Amino acid sequence: MSNSIARTPKPPYFAVLFSSLRTEKDQGYGDMADRMLELAVEQPGYLGVESARTPGGLGITVSYWSSEEAIAQWRSNAEHRVAQELGRRVWYSDFHLRVARVERAHGTMGSS
Amino acid sequence: MSNSIARTPKPPYFAVLFSSLRTEKDQGYGDMADRMLELAVEQPGYLGVESARTPGGLGITVSYWSSEEAIAQWRSNAEHRVAQELGRRVWYSDFHLRVARVERAHGTMGSS
Repeated sequence: MSNSIARTPKPPYFAVLFSSLRTEKDQGYGDMADRMLELAVEQPGYLGVESARTPGGLGITVSYWSSEEAIAQWRSNAEHRVAQELGRRVWYSDFHLRVARVERAHGTMGSS
Repeated sequence: MSNSIARTPKPPYFAVLFSSLRTEKDQGYGDMADRMLELAVEQPGYLGVESARTPGGLGITVSYWSSEEAIAQWRSNAEHRVAQELGRRVWYSDFHLRVARVERAHGTMGSS
């Protein structure tokens, strides 16, 4: 998965915050995560992604989007829906998903 | 730091997304991170925090707040300002901070 800070444009834009705890089950998780990233990047309105997971602990993946419509479209993508279902059934013991509107941003990479 | 999914209330509420890459320098980082969490929890309007860091890679900390005012107050907290300055100078080689309004949420822990 991505291991760097996303170079998002000037706000406003949207963020999907996905927080999860993994089960012990692998069953293709890594390959699916790679495939979902590959697929997300191709979606209209995709702006970037950031992902981190503490070993044995919490994972946080934040994807950035130009609009709510782009998020809705990505959520309903057929291949992504299969991944969501497997996530619920196999890979995640707990998760929470939040959709947020980014109002402002700053950091060492400029932008504000 | 926190290693679980925050039990936030029904949206709307606010999120501060802090993405960072660490330097090799420790210099009290762990103690300061613990202290900042302790202090954040005491702030008016604090709703929860989630944090994850891939070893050798990206860290994402998301704190949740009831209002923009609560975020502004936390940002200007004297002890927190010292930590911010040390972060910029010593602990982080790169960071990006985003403030967002959470519009909706769902997950295995209920709420929507």
